[in-house]
Amino acid sequence: MSFNTFGHLFRVTTWGESHGPALGATVDGCPPGIAIDEAMIQHWLDRRKPGQSKFTTQRREPDAVQILSGVFEGRTTGTTIQLMIENTDQRSKDYSEIAQKFRPGHADITYHQKYGLRDYRGGGRSSARETAARVAAGGLARAALAALVPDLRITGYMVQMGPHGIDRGRFDWDEIERNPFWTPDPQAAEDWAAYLDGLRKSGDSVGAVIEVTARGCPPGLGAPIYAKLDTDLAAAAMSINAVKGVEIGDGMASAALTGTANADEITMGPDGPDYGSNHAGGILGGISTGQDIVMRFAVKPTSSILTPRRTITMDGEETDIVTKGRHDPCVGIRAVPVGEAMMACVILDHLLLDRGQTGGVRGAIG
Amino acid sequence: MSFNTFGHLFRVTTWGESHGPALGATVDGCPPGIAIDEAMIQHWLDRRKPGQSKFTTQRREPDAVQILSGVFEGRTTGTTIQLMIENTDQRSKDYSEIAQKFRPGHADITYHQKYGLRDYRGGGRSSARETAARVAAGGLARAALAALVPDLRITGYMVQMGPHGIDRGRFDWDEIERNPFWTPDPQAAEDWAAYLDGLRKSGDSVGAVIEVTARGCPPGLGAPIYAKLDTDLAAAAMSINAVKGVEIGDGMASAALTGTANADEITMGPDGPDYGSNHAGGILGGISTGQDIVMRFAVKPTSSILTPRRTITMDGEETDIVTKGRHDPCVGIRAVPVGEAMMACVILDHLLLDRGQTGGVRGAIG
Amino acid sequence: MSFNTFGHLFRVTTWGESHGPALGATVDGCPPGIAIDEAMIQHWLDRRKPGQSKFTTQRREPDAVQILSGVFEGRTTGTTIQLMIENTDQRSKDYSEIAQKFRPGHADITYHQKYGLRDYRGGGRSSARETAARVAAGGLARAALAALVPDLRITGYMVQMGPHGIDRGRFDWDEIERNPFWTPDPQAAEDWAAYLDGLRKSGDSVGAVIEVTARGCPPGLGAPIYAKLDTDLAAAAMSINAVKGVEIGDGMASAALTGTANADEITMGPDGPDYGSNHAGGILGGISTGQDIVMRFAVKPTSSILTPRRTITMDGEETDIVTKGRHDPCVGIRAVPVGEAMMACVILDHLLLDRGQTGGVRGAIG
Amino acid sequence: MSFNTFGHLFRVTTWGESHGPALGATVDGCPPGIAIDEAMIQHWLDRRKPGQSKFTTQRREPDAVQILSGVFEGRTTGTTIQLMIENTDQRSKDYSEIAQKFRPGHADITYHQKYGLRDYRGGGRSSARETAARVAAGGLARAALAALVPDLRITGYMVQMGPHGIDRGRFDWDEIERNPFWTPDPQAAEDWAAYLDGLRKSGDSVGAVIEVTARGCPPGLGAPIYAKLDTDLAAAAMSINAVKGVEIGDGMASAALTGTANADEITMGPDGPDYGSNHAGGILGGISTGQDIVMRFAVKPTSSILTPRRTITMDGEETDIVTKGRHDPCVGIRAVPVGEAMMACVILDHLLLDRGQTGGVRGAIG
Repeated sequence: MSFNTFGHLFRVTTWGESHGPALGATVDGCPPGIAIDEAMIQHWLDRRKPGQSKFTTQRREPDAVQILSGVFEGRTTGTTIQLMIENTDQRSKDYSEIAQKFRPGHADITYHQKYGLRDYRGGGRSSARETAARVAAGGLARAALAALVPDLRITGYMVQMGPHGIDRGRFDWDEIERNPFWTPDPQAAEDWAAYLDGLRKSGDSVGAVIEVTARGCPPGLGAPIYAKLDTDLAAAAMSINAVKGVEIGDGMASAALTGTANADEITMGPDGPDYGSNHAGGILGGISTGQDIVMRFAVKPTSSILTPRRTITMDGEETDIVTKGRHDPCVGIRAVPVGEAMMACVILDHLLLDRGQTGGVRGAIG
Repeated sequence: MSFNTFGHLFRVTTWGESHGPALGATVDGCPPGIAIDEAMIQHWLDRRKPGQSKFTTQRREPDAVQILSGVFEGRTTGTTIQLMIENTDQRSKDYSEIAQKFRPGHADITYHQKYGLRDYRGGGRSSARETAARVAAGGLARAALAALVPDLRITGYMVQMGPHGIDRGRFDWDEIERNPFWTPDPQAAEDWAAYLDGLRKSGDSVGAVIEVTARGCPPGLGAPIYAKLDTDLAAAAMSINAVKGVEIGDGMASAALTGTANADEITMGPDGPDYGSNHAGGILGGISTGQDIVMRFAVKPTSSILTPRRTITMDGEETDIVTKGRHDPCVGIRAVPVGEAMMACVILDHLLLDRGQTGGVRGAIG
Repeated sequence: MSFNTFGHLFRVTTWGESHGPALGATVDGCPPGIAIDEAMIQHWLDRRKPGQSKFTTQRREPDAVQILSGVFEGRTTGTTIQLMIENTDQRSKDYSEIAQKFRPGHADITYHQKYGLRDYRGGGRSSARETAARVAAGGLARAALAALVPDLRITGYMVQMGPHGIDRGRFDWDEIERNPFWTPDPQAAEDWAAYLDGLRKSGDSVGAVIEVTARGCPPGLGAPIYAKLDTDLAAAAMSINAVKGVEIGDGMASAALTGTANADEITMGPDGPDYGSNHAGGILGGISTGQDIVMRFAVKPTSSILTPRRTITMDGEETDIVTKGRHDPCVGIRAVPVGEAMMACVILDHLLLDRGQTGGVRGAIG
Repeated sequence: MSFNTFGHLFRVTTWGESHGPALGATVDGCPPGIAIDEAMIQHWLDRRKPGQSKFTTQRREPDAVQILSGVFEGRTTGTTIQLMIENTDQRSKDYSEIAQKFRPGHADITYHQKYGLRDYRGGGRSSARETAARVAAGGLARAALAALVPDLRITGYMVQMGPHGIDRGRFDWDEIERNPFWTPDPQAAEDWAAYLDGLRKSGDSVGAVIEVTARGCPPGLGAPIYAKLDTDLAAAAMSINAVKGVEIGDGMASAALTGTANADEITMGPDGPDYGSNHAGGILGGISTGQDIVMRFAVKPTSSILTPRRTITMDGEETDIVTKGRHDPCVGIRAVPVGEAMMACVILDHLLLDRGQTGGVRGAIG
């Protein structure tokens, strides 16, 4: 990864500020011949769009994507693809009064220290709006994956809101698209609605844990040691605004297990190796096993809350700050499509990287 | 990161297998003029060396590092530095009988599937011995950091062994070097000794959580969005063998917090901004704040245990496997110096990256 | 360099096809705090614009650049800068009849073979219009260089048109901006005008040699061995459409010299080392000496000519092709601003790379 | 390219100084399963070895290569391959008296200015000995190419020594291995022997032009715009010590041609497209056509000559310098295997890059 680009072969560079004229993703290295149009990408952006439900931010952006290059007669040409989304509903006046103050928990102070200046409107480049560009790139990656790995399904969902987890015994894949939290536990969907209502009214916020699973990923993806699949997934997730932790498989809980409990034993199935369990989260030695790839990341609560917080001004004077305007009581909800998009980009990238180095031929077993 | 290289400007490529003639680190982009010699690097390798205590693996390697290039008359020249460590105690015969089987929880099966072949001796390239090369590179990074950021202190320590954590109320920095677990809690040092003795005799293993802290890191390091400091730290940690989770600051626990509880408020101190707390782990928007950088990672239990596990052979036949020979009942212990080394390499890399893009001039406050 | 990106720290990714809605440059890693606006970049684009003189192509594009991100209140923020130029005058109908044929000397056949499809309108991505994006990026680089190295002057000029060279004895820097060929030899400007008139009428084309000089470049830029300054300049020049040769200093003629004739002897001047000659072109061992950096590149004649050429169709049938529509009888003229832009981007990139690795401190002499 | 690494997927990092203990190449991204051993690589090094004929340097180095990693049971594993060559015949005393002076035409002064120090023995890192590492990496690349593209033949040869060219009418491929200059013109071999004898006695030196041809390269290699095949070849050649110019196909002479003369017309042959000529040098739009790839580069005369030259000391005092010891009267001769090695590495790299992005499927014609 470098500054504003991620990926090795399928390389995505995002650009754009919260209150600039537009934002987007410059995608280089997409395989040629992939069928793609704006509607296919728009589909994924619409899932992320603000104003979707009463629980997410009230900013109304159509997030309409335009494909400005790299596609001809409905197919990718193999050249750079420019995806642009124009900003239409910025409401600058919400931020002007706090141009001189650093919002605690945000990147205001660090951007100022590093760069000497910052676009203070809506968080500028550090705003979560940047993730719209990732979702667009993810839509493109999904189109390529659909052609190259038709059985692959990438699904993101919330497994925890604030301190409230889900009951995996009630896990229902079909429930995910039926509730505004993208949670697979119908009971949690109910409980969280009430919980979040309370937070929205009190002006506070809460964090979340998002899990993204890739089912049907072929074995052999990942390039040890420093471009391992889990390394790139961890980086991808950690690069999302407000993320503070990343897990693969059993994650942090792996530490508490014994070797006997942790090992995923191997048997032989009709189509190849079978694993009795998946503590590893589908990745061994940094390479996919063919099992479900399971990644989780924790999103901290948004620091833009209606309670006054102590801070300083750019002149070094102590003051209070209250962030008015539009906020997400739980930014984690909108991180679900973003996590999926990152998973898609990383898996596609590794598919290309693998076939580049090895030609895609797998070592036979049996 | 790419295949076997990590870093943007301070670029480290590791090479070498567990049972090959040697292993090492090719380091490119080191600042010139840094005072360095083999003893300075050897210091850090000795902390990691196998055979150190009765709790770690019994393989006896001197891990003697040689500097083959890039240093002249005791100073780095700015050209490629080759650090080589010869393997001397491989005991090949320990592994020959399992050349045909895939050890569960190890990379054997995925390396075979991806590459079509694998060096099965001791895990080959996927072995934890690769981390000796990282520690060597980390020693070089520390020498550069000592010259560029004299107040920086990077310290790693264990905060959890299996299910047993530490009591942060008893946290003592000086305790870390006094016990074989590098834990800052003297009581935990005692408890863990007994616990691990039991595991070693039963032939089982356990995981661990390691925390690495960088005190005195200047603000402004990190290159948003995709080369954020926490992104690169997460990737660095996740690239270590057997790591399954990474956290910055409050990590996964951030999800359970409310915005009110999570925000690190800012006041003005004599030397600049002061933070009342450090939930963020020293990083905001991907850039260091000047606070302690706090990273944690979870190491899963080693899968090389003396209990028979079900697996398959390369021919697809089901069988059992018992890993004889030398093992770590808790590989996490030896990951402490590795975590420190990665932190050192990443921080140096970002110091260079920052002064490259911005010239190192900071935005003034006050 | 990778696919559509060049540069190490100052990284430029270009996008856009000749007949797409727009084209542009995504610039990452620009130093923050640089004063920049659209007019400053437009200045350089206007020098390149088609329809400028009767000798260049008659396509009328305003080439109006928009800055879509990365600049706030007139200064670069250090985040991704998106420069976009909308295409307005494509005249699609000029190309539709040759969609099935491969134009000899163009990339039509190789793009088809590599990607399986191609945007045939005006050469698609392989069109020279891509260079407008480079000139925009070069304008941004020049702004940064003006702030960081105020004495630097980058000047490009034609030294040969077809078989006709210049007389260096008549070299006048001020003549360059006074004639439509950007040549420093006023007599050549006259001779070439007549020569090119003849070619334009006959429907043929001719090549050119462009030289770009950087005066006032500080010593120490360049990162041996594989990111040498001349290595990156050669790559930058060779990446320009239709370029077939690159030279530094005496270039290919160096081969014919003896060591006695070739060596640039060194004496001591009031400000530092002085060189009696500049056969080296300002670069020794891949690093700038402080002398004028001199680079030359040869542009082959455009293959879009009005004389019928033998070729094949996509179905493999032999046929003739005549390229109607708008053409450059000498594309080399318009490569002058492009060469300058590339020189600017590479020098800025190396300035940042050098201060990243070394902090910019120079070894003292005297 | 970055500092000391070149390549995108097949990535080579060289290390080592002229008078250090060893030098080598760290190769990452080699395809797995390639049959390779030390003898196969040694073959190519022996062609480059000093002391080969009376015309090249008298330093006697066995240049014995060792494979330290990445190969198991005679096949590449897909992990990092370390190739090391120990230096045995350094004769330090030849250089000690000139440690304080900067040799004109060498990198001494620029390395000092950039890094603040330099390994002055034999040119340190800037020495041509670094090219031994490239030749080793090239030997590895050739082994992979032999498996992946069996019909590919890469051949380098001298086409000019000093001012004396060859007669292409006498071009004989088999002559190349029969004379000490690797020239395909038997008459030139005779003439040059006499010419060089004279230079060697007078203590002067001369430059050369080397041409490298790749026959049997498949179409479709190259990644426009900035990783074009010719871009990477130009960079590869320009990175070789003492190179000052690079050409593809007709090179600088392209400028003097008209479009009518320059275009390579296309007809249909039994196996696919046929080209009537090859002015393009096998590359169109940066992508290989399937024709012979033809690259030429000019090597300047060595600046280490026995005639006194004016220079300065590190203290800024004017002085004379005479380079005693061992010298190449024509370094160009030894650049032939180096040019071949770079061609091999670049072509392999692009083969992998192409199959990574496109899967290697070609657009059909006919």
